Amino acid sequence: MPRRAIVRCLPMSGPEDTSAIAALIAGGEVRAGDIRAILGKTEGNGCVNDFTRGFAVQSLRALLSAHLSAEAVAAIPMVMSGGTEGGLSPHWIVFAEREDSDASGAAPTAPAPALAFASIVTRDLHPSEIGRRAQGEAVRDAVLEAMQAAGIEDPRDVHFVQVKCPLLTAERAAAAGGDVATDSMLKSMGLSRGASALGVALALGEIEGFADADVGRSLDLWSSRASCSAGIELMGCEVVVMGLSPRWTGPLRIAHAVMQDAIDAPAIASLLETAAPGAPLQGAGARIAALLCKAEASATGRIRGARHTMLEDSDISSTRHARGFVGGMIAGLTGRTDLFVSGGAEHQGPDGGGPAALIYDTEKGLTE
Amino acid sequence: MPRRAIVRCLPMSGPEDTSAIAALIAGGEVRAGDIRAILGKTEGNGCVNDFTRGFAVQSLRALLSAHLSAEAVAAIPMVMSGGTEGGLSPHWIVFAEREDSDASGAAPTAPAPALAFASIVTRDLHPSEIGRRAQGEAVRDAVLEAMQAAGIEDPRDVHFVQVKCPLLTAERAAAAGGDVATDSMLKSMGLSRGASALGVALALGEIEGFADADVGRSLDLWSSRASCSAGIELMGCEVVVMGLSPRWTGPLRIAHAVMQDAIDAPAIASLLETAAPGAPLQGAGARIAALLCKAEASATGRIRGARHTMLEDSDISSTRHARGFVGGMIAGLTGRTDLFVSGGAEHQGPDGGGPAALIYDTEKGLTE
Amino acid sequence: MPRRAIVRCLPMSGPEDTSAIAALIAGGEVRAGDIRAILGKTEGNGCVNDFTRGFAVQSLRALLSAHLSAEAVAAIPMVMSGGTEGGLSPHWIVFAEREDSDASGAAPTAPAPALAFASIVTRDLHPSEIGRRAQGEAVRDAVLEAMQAAGIEDPRDVHFVQVKCPLLTAERAAAAGGDVATDSMLKSMGLSRGASALGVALALGEIEGFADADVGRSLDLWSSRASCSAGIELMGCEVVVMGLSPRWTGPLRIAHAVMQDAIDAPAIASLLETAAPGAPLQGAGARIAALLCKAEASATGRIRGARHTMLEDSDISSTRHARGFVGGMIAGLTGRTDLFVSGGAEHQGPDGGGPAALIYDTEKGLTE
Amino acid sequence: MPRRAIVRCLPMSGPEDTSAIAALIAGGEVRAGDIRAILGKTEGNGCVNDFTRGFAVQSLRALLSAHLSAEAVAAIPMVMSGGTEGGLSPHWIVFAEREDSDASGAAPTAPAPALAFASIVTRDLHPSEIGRRAQGEAVRDAVLEAMQAAGIEDPRDVHFVQVKCPLLTAERAAAAGGDVATDSMLKSMGLSRGASALGVALALGEIEGFADADVGRSLDLWSSRASCSAGIELMGCEVVVMGLSPRWTGPLRIAHAVMQDAIDAPAIASLLETAAPGAPLQGAGARIAALLCKAEASATGRIRGARHTMLEDSDISSTRHARGFVGGMIAGLTGRTDLFVSGGAEHQGPDGGGPAALIYDTEKGLTE
Repeated sequence: MPRRAIVRCLPMSGPEDTSAIAALIAGGEVRAGDIRAILGKTEGNGCVNDFTRGFAVQSLRALLSAHLSAEAVAAIPMVMSGGTEGGLSPHWIVFAEREDSDASGAAPTAPAPALAFASIVTRDLHPSEIGRRAQGEAVRDAVLEAMQAAGIEDPRDVHFVQVKCPLLTAERAAAAGGDVATDSMLKSMGLSRGASALGVALALGEIEGFADADVGRSLDLWSSRASCSAGIELMGCEVVVMGLSPRWTGPLRIAHAVMQDAIDAPAIASLLETAAPGAPLQGAGARIAALLCKAEASATGRIRGARHTMLEDSDISSTRHARGFVGGMIAGLTGRTDLFVSGGAEHQGPDGGGPAALIYDTEKGLTE
Repeated sequence: MPRRAIVRCLPMSGPEDTSAIAALIAGGEVRAGDIRAILGKTEGNGCVNDFTRGFAVQSLRALLSAHLSAEAVAAIPMVMSGGTEGGLSPHWIVFAEREDSDASGAAPTAPAPALAFASIVTRDLHPSEIGRRAQGEAVRDAVLEAMQAAGIEDPRDVHFVQVKCPLLTAERAAAAGGDVATDSMLKSMGLSRGASALGVALALGEIEGFADADVGRSLDLWSSRASCSAGIELMGCEVVVMGLSPRWTGPLRIAHAVMQDAIDAPAIASLLETAAPGAPLQGAGARIAALLCKAEASATGRIRGARHTMLEDSDISSTRHARGFVGGMIAGLTGRTDLFVSGGAEHQGPDGGGPAALIYDTEKGLTE
Repeated sequence: MPRRAIVRCLPMSGPEDTSAIAALIAGGEVRAGDIRAILGKTEGNGCVNDFTRGFAVQSLRALLSAHLSAEAVAAIPMVMSGGTEGGLSPHWIVFAEREDSDASGAAPTAPAPALAFASIVTRDLHPSEIGRRAQGEAVRDAVLEAMQAAGIEDPRDVHFVQVKCPLLTAERAAAAGGDVATDSMLKSMGLSRGASALGVALALGEIEGFADADVGRSLDLWSSRASCSAGIELMGCEVVVMGLSPRWTGPLRIAHAVMQDAIDAPAIASLLETAAPGAPLQGAGARIAALLCKAEASATGRIRGARHTMLEDSDISSTRHARGFVGGMIAGLTGRTDLFVSGGAEHQGPDGGGPAALIYDTEKGLTE
Repeated sequence: MPRRAIVRCLPMSGPEDTSAIAALIAGGEVRAGDIRAILGKTEGNGCVNDFTRGFAVQSLRALLSAHLSAEAVAAIPMVMSGGTEGGLSPHWIVFAEREDSDASGAAPTAPAPALAFASIVTRDLHPSEIGRRAQGEAVRDAVLEAMQAAGIEDPRDVHFVQVKCPLLTAERAAAAGGDVATDSMLKSMGLSRGASALGVALALGEIEGFADADVGRSLDLWSSRASCSAGIELMGCEVVVMGLSPRWTGPLRIAHAVMQDAIDAPAIASLLETAAPGAPLQGAGARIAALLCKAEASATGRIRGARHTMLEDSDISSTRHARGFVGGMIAGLTGRTDLFVSGGAEHQGPDGGGPAALIYDTEKGLTE
């Protein structure tokens, strides 16, 4: 029997507000046991001392514990990404799956291949592995394993890989006897994201290999489909692979594009054209089930030759600047603000750009 | 002999960097005496302790003092607006004017009406007037006077009015014996911007009148063409009126639109369509001589029903959030980041939205 | 049988880290059922979007739920105060009480009167009451009730009253039909703290009455013993009264002083002299069981005539500045950084100053 | 004829406000030509995008240009240090010198040795030298040269060396072909301060040598008298040496101490005891001509075993936290807020601590 994906973007009034997910479960549309992953765009600073991520996860676990065993709750990846700068709207994205028995003998609502996904959590990393090749290899293996679990055979059918990975703290660095990639917590977030992205690139055949020294430096090595965020609350990597598979059915599809810089609206427009051919500006909005992308400040200090100030601002982290700015760009094209814009795109797309993925519903009409 | 406008967007590497203006003067394209106003988008926080504005003005005065008398320098409005959040690029906009003698008997390069402008500085306000009707009336009179100076007769031909206005400090409030609109410096910036905008609305016939109590409260009273920013460095209001007049010639034109909310990309798209009919996404970029607009967080805490967090963020001012976000939106549509996005749009367009003006060059081609 | 107070300052590695309290309970020194209140100095910004407070409370409730009924957990006031600027150290303060049966027939370890406390939670306030006299009256009644519960008869024996009170949100303001003290969330925190403090002052006979209009304005009305912090997570006021009572025994004592400005080290030194007469600089540190105080930027913009910049800094809230600065001042005198310095001292001590309370252990030696 | 030092702490209302210095000159107490150095504690963030430093220097130059030749103005070191967190007060410190002809044959007002100082500006550094040994050697030579100019023979008579040094920008790194100590602007500030401090330590015989790799890493190498701050506005190092010399006269003296951590109040108290033996808490305040020190967050994340959060706060730079906190500590001891607390103490005192110098006036009485 084919599998069927359900993807729901749901609002939150704060990191502790899981009421929309509770209502989804109460309404019967999604059973708690159907949930395969939950992403959250929470309203912290997205940097080291962003407690909205941990608060959201603790709140999600409390909610799901009323429905599932502790083991089942622990098996659900919860990838929180902090930062809703500008007009971005805090939200959850619930990924659920059910057998297509609802179709009750009728033909599938839409011809396959449809959106498919699966998630894998790697073993806990040793602090000395964070931000280095060993981390990348663990992520590579997890991507390959998740592809198999999702029924995706060809790496070209993978359209997005969301990774949540650990960071280094002073305690962790000490536990490694100082044999760590960096002694800066903030910098370790970037190296961890970068090593994860290179792992995705390995799995998808985008690069052939990399060395420890490439992480954070060889900016020409990158994945077109990796989106990685780091957090203090885990030591392994949670990997969610999304793509298209003929073993899945239903109206949902996924496509991806790579933004070449922070104002690459044409890349996003091409995605929207795929979802809703011929739709006018903001016309594809209603078809969007979820839009996920990365944003970062270009290391050159310039965008198409014009100077930006994101890297010189000691009051606001460049990741906060980049999320708000790219968020505004995409909100203008889609007419929506519940966009999963994640900061820190090391080795995720070219310098200053980043990958974007659109999950869309072929049964939804155009925005009037 | 017809007047001819020159508008040049020029980069800066910091608030003290006037080298691009110096080069413009040295190259002979613009004489120092031709300059009628200089706007600057500087890289401070745009709030109370933004010293980039004063530093830029002091630097401009030092530059121009080598060419002009002290009186001539003092007569040039210098409207600095702090805040280049996200990928926005710090820049100067030089407004100059010369008689069209260059045309040497030939027909004007483009048929009138063309871009016209003029500026007026009001008397110094008393602290008790700031943020109140008296300020609005002073601005109203200055707008009418500037229209006449610019040769614009019909208020409908005014497309943008840039106002730089004062704010209240503890010292100024004390000097007024406490009879002031607010005792908060930050709040006084908003009230001053609002009172100025209502003055513009009066001059342009958009409203019929307003009371002290309307400032900052009656959000349904607004101007579609006012853009106001407050700064500590002056006590009067500097008013620059821009519009179309048959007495001016040359290839420059101006148009305006009102964004209904922070993601009103269609409003900006309509402006770009005016400048470059049929141009594809980002195709109108090369025709842009300058793009000026306002941005603000909606007081409702929502954008099209979705919650935003700009007003609840005690780490970053909502004006910074709004500039970066709206800046990203417009950068995506134009392919440019040297955009004059100014924060704090009280009574300047509807709540959460704001006016936008496009100065474009009809002789420039489309962006390839 | 006399009551005996136990007060323990315990470290936390983050708002979710309750392990030190768990160890205290596991070690048998304090039973979960003995806990009467928990204060927490958490590492958020202490302003509107400080989620460390809610995260800490959620974590505390999860811990205590393993030991106590839901009703018992709900009855324990948990007063989280955000902000550990500078070198301040995040910590919990557990207030517990047990009958002095441990004394097993022996004479009490120290002659009464000893530290006494009790807490009361008011009814939920209506949004229209927040920041107004109605809130103050509710707090006044709670203080009087808590005095009785603590066995403190004379208001002069009350040395500190910690209040956690609600703030206004857009939703709450709407629920009140707009009849609210302010429409600014941040400002509502100050008005709520102020109204609570005036309520304490009423209960302790420090003022005779006040009107709605006095809140946030009549800065000459203040309590010498109120410490109030506002948070989004409650609608009532949690009131913890601390003082001296002959019905309590044990080695703990409490004293208070009022700082006249942000550098009133002599006021703190006098407290330390009370706890440890003749001790040298930092010598009283080991006797400190807990030190609680308020800090704020003076509204005049000056400290002893010299300008400060706390109110003009749009990058960092003045409450963050004040906590770090006053925290440094007290840390220098005590040699400790686990100080409960809380920001926003409206009507809590004179403008720019604030109350301070010292709980000390008469059986502890001096810091070597 | 003996030389006589004049040191004056003067307030500023903003970085452009040089009126107090203008008044000092106008009053005849100090002639513009007597000024040997001007230090400024300005109200920016003290980090990369702190424009208050450059604005202050531009304003000082404009003031002095009315009195002195361009060459004379250029020869005066102007060491601006950003950051007046907490209650610290923005101020100038003017160092002037005159021959003691005022003494008109009478005996010197106080017996030598008295405060002595001199300044030297090094050659411009090549970007590849910044943050490395070459910078340290240039500073070492400048210190030795300045000692000679000040008439200080014994390194033990040097009590403070204030250094202003350059930082790396993307442009400068590119000019060096990438051969730079770091590619992070913010990090380059720390390495530049550190290399300068090690240069001071070399000159004073505190260390015997150091390698490039020691800068920013070998925290056990440090100077007890170096205070270094980095800024974008210069490429050389401005070095001001202060000490005691028998060739100078007058009532001013200088002493120094090393704070072992951020709450080392006893170290400051010992300095105050030197200036005003037996004075009570805050009693020495009136004798203070200037107090200069460094502050930083300890790299261990702890102060006397208790966790601090300065290094994990992505909203506020740790240097801002440290200045406000240490500023509060010293303000409590002195009763003054016009303290020159400078952030970033790499190799300037032990980790988490820093040097402090007190210039005091032996003819002033005690604070009543």
